[in-house]
Amino acid sequence: MGKLEDIISLCKRRGFIFQGSEVYGGMAGTWDYGPLGVTMKRKIMDEWWKYFVENRDDIYGIDAAIIMNPKTWVASGHTTTFADPLVECKECKSRFRADKITDGFTESITTEEFLETHTKCPNCGKENWGPIRKFNMMFKTHVGAVLPEDDKENPELAKNNIAYLRPETAQGIFTNYKNVVDTIYPNIPFGIAQQGKAFRNEISPRDFILRDRECSQMEVEYFVAPDTWEKYFEEMRQSQHDFLENVMKLPADKIHELEVPAEDRAHYSKRTIDVMFDYPNGEEELMGLAYRTDFDLANIERESGKSMEYRDKTTGETFIPHVIEPSIGVERLFLAIISNAYTEDEINGEKRIVLKLPENLAPYRFCVSPLLKNKPELVSKAREVYRILREKYNNVTWDDSGNIGKRYRKQDEIGTPKCVVIDFTTLEDNTVTVRERDTTEQTRVSIENL
Amino acid sequence: MGKLEDIISLCKRRGFIFQGSEVYGGMAGTWDYGPLGVTMKRKIMDEWWKYFVENRDDIYGIDAAIIMNPKTWVASGHTTTFADPLVECKECKSRFRADKITDGFTESITTEEFLETHTKCPNCGKENWGPIRKFNMMFKTHVGAVLPEDDKENPELAKNNIAYLRPETAQGIFTNYKNVVDTIYPNIPFGIAQQGKAFRNEISPRDFILRDRECSQMEVEYFVAPDTWEKYFEEMRQSQHDFLENVMKLPADKIHELEVPAEDRAHYSKRTIDVMFDYPNGEEELMGLAYRTDFDLANIERESGKSMEYRDKTTGETFIPHVIEPSIGVERLFLAIISNAYTEDEINGEKRIVLKLPENLAPYRFCVSPLLKNKPELVSKAREVYRILREKYNNVTWDDSGNIGKRYRKQDEIGTPKCVVIDFTTLEDNTVTVRERDTTEQTRVSIENL
Repeated sequence: MGKLEDIISLCKRRGFIFQGSEVYGGMAGTWDYGPLGVTMKRKIMDEWWKYFVENRDDIYGIDAAIIMNPKTWVASGHTTTFADPLVECKECKSRFRADKITDGFTESITTEEFLETHTKCPNCGKENWGPIRKFNMMFKTHVGAVLPEDDKENPELAKNNIAYLRPETAQGIFTNYKNVVDTIYPNIPFGIAQQGKAFRNEISPRDFILRDRECSQMEVEYFVAPDTWEKYFEEMRQSQHDFLENVMKLPADKIHELEVPAEDRAHYSKRTIDVMFDYPNGEEELMGLAYRTDFDLANIERESGKSMEYRDKTTGETFIPHVIEPSIGVERLFLAIISNAYTEDEINGEKRIVLKLPENLAPYRFCVSPLLKNKPELVSKAREVYRILREKYNNVTWDDSGNIGKRYRKQDEIGTPKCVVIDFTTLEDNTVTVRERDTTEQTRVSIENL
Repeated sequence: MGKLEDIISLCKRRGFIFQGSEVYGGMAGTWDYGPLGVTMKRKIMDEWWKYFVENRDDIYGIDAAIIMNPKTWVASGHTTTFADPLVECKECKSRFRADKITDGFTESITTEEFLETHTKCPNCGKENWGPIRKFNMMFKTHVGAVLPEDDKENPELAKNNIAYLRPETAQGIFTNYKNVVDTIYPNIPFGIAQQGKAFRNEISPRDFILRDRECSQMEVEYFVAPDTWEKYFEEMRQSQHDFLENVMKLPADKIHELEVPAEDRAHYSKRTIDVMFDYPNGEEELMGLAYRTDFDLANIERESGKSMEYRDKTTGETFIPHVIEPSIGVERLFLAIISNAYTEDEINGEKRIVLKLPENLAPYRFCVSPLLKNKPELVSKAREVYRILREKYNNVTWDDSGNIGKRYRKQDEIGTPKCVVIDFTTLEDNTVTVRERDTTEQTRVSIENL
């Protein structure tokens, strides 16, 4: 595993991830996927979708809008509770999260507690603080014909048209629960899955893509009869591990479960397991598994006045289903995979950087090269091999830059498992050299056996 | 082709598309994809990505953040020009797009011109209008530690932290042009492709998913040497048609090209072709092909102070590339496909609704059913066939509801090309009935030949 700065550097150098709006000096907390990054991101998301939706009979997908009716966030509690404690230095006007510049406090830190810590301003070094204010992390906007001057001239109109970017994808699922039940008539237990963006206005985004303001989430809300939750909690727990270890190929010994104690759990949850991963900067949450009870559906029922009851087709019983939620952030998973794959080793006395990505996630599975670029017969034969492989696999790259050693270094850095090289022997016997990324071993293989 | 209201009704009834936030009375201009809709949407987007990125050597993907540095929209002109003419009725306070409630005017209508039309308020019927004001359609938000009270107490801070949801995906590509050139070293011509959300605060969203506030775009910016633009414009035009007709299977006779005259083109474009489609409510834009010159890169160069020049590897020439942009909205394409597929016919004197979707886009390719639900030997055999097909195809559905006739109706409505039915003969000779959606013809096929 590499250091975080080495991984950030590789991501930028090779086109995995760039700082958002970099050309304009950046936009804090946003990141853009480059050509290799987007390929890998899509593979991760497709594998998840296949595992949790396509390969199962009991989980259905949806794709809800990012801008939702603001009642959603009243019902879910985000309007009042999705807030961080903001404190302002009266001297230099810098603002900070109070719990992040003190030790041993959580979001519920009070002004009194904060002042007693005698914290100095991280910017100007003075100690002259304003009171702690609640800073809601939802991005606010106005929807509809509201003009900037309405804030003053027509505040009622401006207020009535406030909307938020969703801070989580989960509510897009819960608000569609009834739609899915009424169109698909699923047997319980069943799940609804969604992939999509969520937005959090972090006061201080940091740690590369770990704490960003715009992220992609992948979530299942699994609806069960209330008295069966423990069974399905356990099943989802196993599925999560199976997905992480056998599909994402993350090593089990870097994955740790943290049973979240009652006092640290979200107010709606009766049991939560945080699945932690050994990231370059230490253990951090990779995914979460929460038993959310009927908290969300009951809130929607109250706020909307519509029944969220499910009628069991076999028993005839009616109840509000309870919910098990496995939830993962694409960026956190991306960073886990790439930092786990990052390896520095030595080949014939030379230092090498290699991304040991699993075959199903590497941006390219094969790189095809002519040994020499200036020999037309090699180039045209290599092009032929390239075409054959492209027909079989949609992720094959071509590289005829520099010399063969440089090409290997480059393909190692971007995690291509196999380099296929066409040389003069190829012209004689239709065999090519296949060079393995992890071992650097080379074997000759006939073209038809590729 | 059906009427728009029939298609909306089918989309809701069968779980293709629901109104956004429906449970709370909706959120105007937003739509949620249900289980069948998201499957079809993903197929459309995957086919596009395969066609324009994976199957080509010269187009690279990226995935940029939705919230971009606000300089982006100064450079692109959106801050000043991305605006509709808003007019308010002084009597009832309703607001309208001035050009939409008058005939023969465009966005540039003036207050004087509008008043001369003597338009009555569509809401209250009176004629007492305020002046026309420019309404910028970008959704505005604040990024970072800005509190609601800062609008009054610290307006400078609030102003400095304004950001917008991107109103188009194109700028996410242009701002990453340099990153791609510096990491991939592509030979010109080359393209950068992106799929992602864009947001427009339409004053009056309408026409189902045709004019929504949140949509998904699929765009390529194809970078060419300035004097070659006509050649590549023509190539992209052919690719577009090929994609629409041979991959999306839209009939050529419903697709029309509109050469946009100079006075109607966006200010940056020297040539634009709107590809129109015969939608249920008439001809509407389906996709656009624009020659954007070096407008965007030159703007970025000016605003960022960074060179956007490309150095041709063979000629050594340096220049700012010119751009050909094929651009399509996922929702517009989705509606074209589903409305083209919607068919009402008559089978044995009974009216039938059938979605004649192409096989590669239908939510399910096969539906597997036991002829009778209460015969365990049929059900278990059908389950076996279901498993076999699921291993080959990831989109097979199971249906044992109602009687076989009802199942056919349902599968017809959701566009499943083939229904596979297991009956008593299956138990004897391992053959099944395969019933074709479009013709309703039934043939017996042995299980291994499925």
